[in-house]
Amino acid sequence: MKHALPVTRAQDFAAWYQAVIAEADLAEESGVRGCMVIRPWGYGIWERIQKLMDARIKAAGVENCYFPLFIPLSFFEKEADHVDGFAKEMAVVTHHRLVGDGKGKLIPDPESKLEEPLVVRPTSETVIGQAMSRWVQSWRDLPLLTNQWANVVRWEMRTRMFLRTSEFLWQEGHTAHADRDDAMRETMRALEMYRDFSENALAMPVVAGEKPENERFPGAVATYSIEAMMQDGKALQAGTSHYLGTGFAEAAGIKYQDQEGGQQLCHTTSWGVSTRMIGGVIMVHGDDDGLRCPPQIAPHQVVIVPMLRDNDEDAAVIAYCEELAKALGERDAFREPVRVLFDKKPTKAATKRWGWVKKGAPIIVEVGGRDVAGGNVSVLRRDRLYNEAGKTNSAILPRDAFVAEASAMLADIEANLHAEAKARLDGNIRRDVTNRDGLAAAFAGDKPGWVEVEWAKPTGDALDKVVEWLKGHKLTLRNVPLDAAPATGACIFTGGAAVERVLVGRSY
Amino acid sequence: MKHALPVTRAQDFAAWYQAVIAEADLAEESGVRGCMVIRPWGYGIWERIQKLMDARIKAAGVENCYFPLFIPLSFFEKEADHVDGFAKEMAVVTHHRLVGDGKGKLIPDPESKLEEPLVVRPTSETVIGQAMSRWVQSWRDLPLLTNQWANVVRWEMRTRMFLRTSEFLWQEGHTAHADRDDAMRETMRALEMYRDFSENALAMPVVAGEKPENERFPGAVATYSIEAMMQDGKALQAGTSHYLGTGFAEAAGIKYQDQEGGQQLCHTTSWGVSTRMIGGVIMVHGDDDGLRCPPQIAPHQVVIVPMLRDNDEDAAVIAYCEELAKALGERDAFREPVRVLFDKKPTKAATKRWGWVKKGAPIIVEVGGRDVAGGNVSVLRRDRLYNEAGKTNSAILPRDAFVAEASAMLADIEANLHAEAKARLDGNIRRDVTNRDGLAAAFAGDKPGWVEVEWAKPTGDALDKVVEWLKGHKLTLRNVPLDAAPATGACIFTGGAAVERVLVGRSY
Repeated sequence: MKHALPVTRAQDFAAWYQAVIAEADLAEESGVRGCMVIRPWGYGIWERIQKLMDARIKAAGVENCYFPLFIPLSFFEKEADHVDGFAKEMAVVTHHRLVGDGKGKLIPDPESKLEEPLVVRPTSETVIGQAMSRWVQSWRDLPLLTNQWANVVRWEMRTRMFLRTSEFLWQEGHTAHADRDDAMRETMRALEMYRDFSENALAMPVVAGEKPENERFPGAVATYSIEAMMQDGKALQAGTSHYLGTGFAEAAGIKYQDQEGGQQLCHTTSWGVSTRMIGGVIMVHGDDDGLRCPPQIAPHQVVIVPMLRDNDEDAAVIAYCEELAKALGERDAFREPVRVLFDKKPTKAATKRWGWVKKGAPIIVEVGGRDVAGGNVSVLRRDRLYNEAGKTNSAILPRDAFVAEASAMLADIEANLHAEAKARLDGNIRRDVTNRDGLAAAFAGDKPGWVEVEWAKPTGDALDKVVEWLKGHKLTLRNVPLDAAPATGACIFTGGAAVERVLVGRSY
Repeated sequence: MKHALPVTRAQDFAAWYQAVIAEADLAEESGVRGCMVIRPWGYGIWERIQKLMDARIKAAGVENCYFPLFIPLSFFEKEADHVDGFAKEMAVVTHHRLVGDGKGKLIPDPESKLEEPLVVRPTSETVIGQAMSRWVQSWRDLPLLTNQWANVVRWEMRTRMFLRTSEFLWQEGHTAHADRDDAMRETMRALEMYRDFSENALAMPVVAGEKPENERFPGAVATYSIEAMMQDGKALQAGTSHYLGTGFAEAAGIKYQDQEGGQQLCHTTSWGVSTRMIGGVIMVHGDDDGLRCPPQIAPHQVVIVPMLRDNDEDAAVIAYCEELAKALGERDAFREPVRVLFDKKPTKAATKRWGWVKKGAPIIVEVGGRDVAGGNVSVLRRDRLYNEAGKTNSAILPRDAFVAEASAMLADIEANLHAEAKARLDGNIRRDVTNRDGLAAAFAGDKPGWVEVEWAKPTGDALDKVVEWLKGHKLTLRNVPLDAAPATGACIFTGGAAVERVLVGRSY
């Protein structure tokens, strides 16, 4: 069977991923090292993610702010663990002016050298901590719940669009609390918000759990993640939530007067998701014809393509499409108006159809003269593109019935995408491996999926040894699932008594 | 009469402006040179501006994208006029890693020096031009209409919150067209969008017109602006729209094949508004008690403050407020649900009231035990804070009547703010000055307002002389209003025949 993409998942998953991004007009290389251009369809998906996530963030009482792009070097020197984790990959601003070099080129003006270099934020704990130290005075100011939507930069040697780029877009929540319990509650609330968002907005099932010590955010006391399984069986960390203890509060001086008049350090948290989520959506829902965009984050949920023949019938087809778009736009799906596009571009209908298939518009409606005459529409569901005979699965439906059904159809597509991904995730986690050889064998020959094993939760050097052995097999520890069964046997790595179950897998 | 701010407009307008920003919790200094922290109330206003402007941008068929933060130096070298205009004020990234200096400090790692320095975007014409050169191939691809919401950096020596900061937030529209006419249509469409937005969303009357040659955007063929009059009579340029001709297209190679098969250069435009608009809103609508936030951009339109007495009545007051908030939230104002906040913070009611007065919440509702008993609410309109006796103008209204009226009240507040500002603008533009001495005299003693004069539209050296004379009097040319009367007399500067009328004023 012929497909719309030049390469299939089975042939070369990495090349397929790049092909989806190119053919669906999601993003492209910018000519600036490590930075991508996010094109309208890709950015439209990000706008949808922002809108739905922002509503959840605001509903939790968190307020959006904006903090500086630049962070003075000295801010980083205060939090030693944190800077160690990031020190190797930051963009540094050293000059504030350009001048001509007298040979037609521009150079940084040596006279404009900054006394203190500025770092382009890789994350904003340090600069937000400074602000919090001003805003928090008394127990009445707590909890302080802030978030920002922003670009951040982490200099990356090997980049991959959406998954790992030097500049990326994200939201970063930062909160300060009176005590550990309240901060942990917020850490887990954010984690659950991400889990729920991923499952119920992106149709992307995930495993929520705690990262092992070696995978913690620099400076954090505990890091939690959601991990999604891509179609090649690898894991993608799609969101993180950190309990930071009092370390950042101590470095920045975030203190409050408690109800008895004493001075206390705050306990802080941070949590974030980024444009990386779009990479996850592609690798979870894409197929050999391109992206399949979950309806809740599709910039257009229904695209209407007119079949024009440059004859007298065209005016009637166009009028019929306009009416259809209007009728659909008056309907709600997922408690918002249905997002409809009537695609009037001067391009052939077949080209448009396949363009929208590759972009993953959930429903593509084609309207020709015969449909107008019969009061019908030809409906193509992106989640059921082909019938059993391998032909595109267009269904002719009465127009009114389709308008009445469109919301339910979108909900059904969303549910289908989730069910398919959920079956893949559940079907590809093994829990029967009890020794290291078995673990290595489970991944031999690029077998897809993860293995959940019992372990003793080693720390320090003992953990380093485990990580090194895993690295030798191209494996990583993903997280300790919150809902994992209790451990009952021996640690697969150390042979000691196991205390919990941890997920092992290949990763992005 | 005592006011909520420590300084009045009449006493010291500049100090008053800073006081509003501080007391309304809009923004604050960040500790990072030239960069501000935008606090929740200020950022909430920006979110409202984004939402309402973005809807207008999308309605015009413009698609949002995202382009890199960093621009290689070489991109700037291609467009000579453009780089001359910006070369003096850019943040330059020269290194991509930090290392310890062995003495506990961090320094840029000399080994990480970039071969080609990167500029933090001051605006994105050059990098977007590169993308457009890939996206535009044929006349079918035109017009290409893009926009991005982003942060930009222009190194500023003297900064002022919202008005001139090194980093600021904005949207920048960038479009490519087949010919001059289509590009000019887009330039004027964007200008009209800004004019309409400013008048009808911000309640901020403006004069739309063309900037004189010396005020053009670097590299532009024509620059248009909207100019708003602040309460001190100075002008604030609140938005610009540029027709860029074919200069940027030539530098970036944005070409298309026309319908006859020939190669043509595109004509491009760009247009933008920024967080500067918030500075304008403050200086147009603020009073000696703080900000008066136009209802359409107020993060909360109605704030409910409970009067609690730590006694048995409190539960009933709280329940009454919850009900009231729910009933108001079910109403629409300006075709969106009314934004209501029930302020439950553990602070005294009087403190809260004045906090919301300073922030400029359009309607503040106070509810005490007596209101609950009588089925009433105490309503304070921010645009009519005091009665004729100089007392706060709280009105006791039946609860149901208030709920039914709230939308109309918000619309009335918006209209009042606009009318007040419009009367000020119209009443402070003189058109009767016919010579230079008269012009200087019109501004003597810091008289507020602008003067519209006839001029010969000099260019080059002749214009430079005019600009220099004006500078000597701390005056600037603002714009040539689109709706100005035709010129009939002599140029006020050169004595030659005048060709149009231009606005002169002090400016921010």
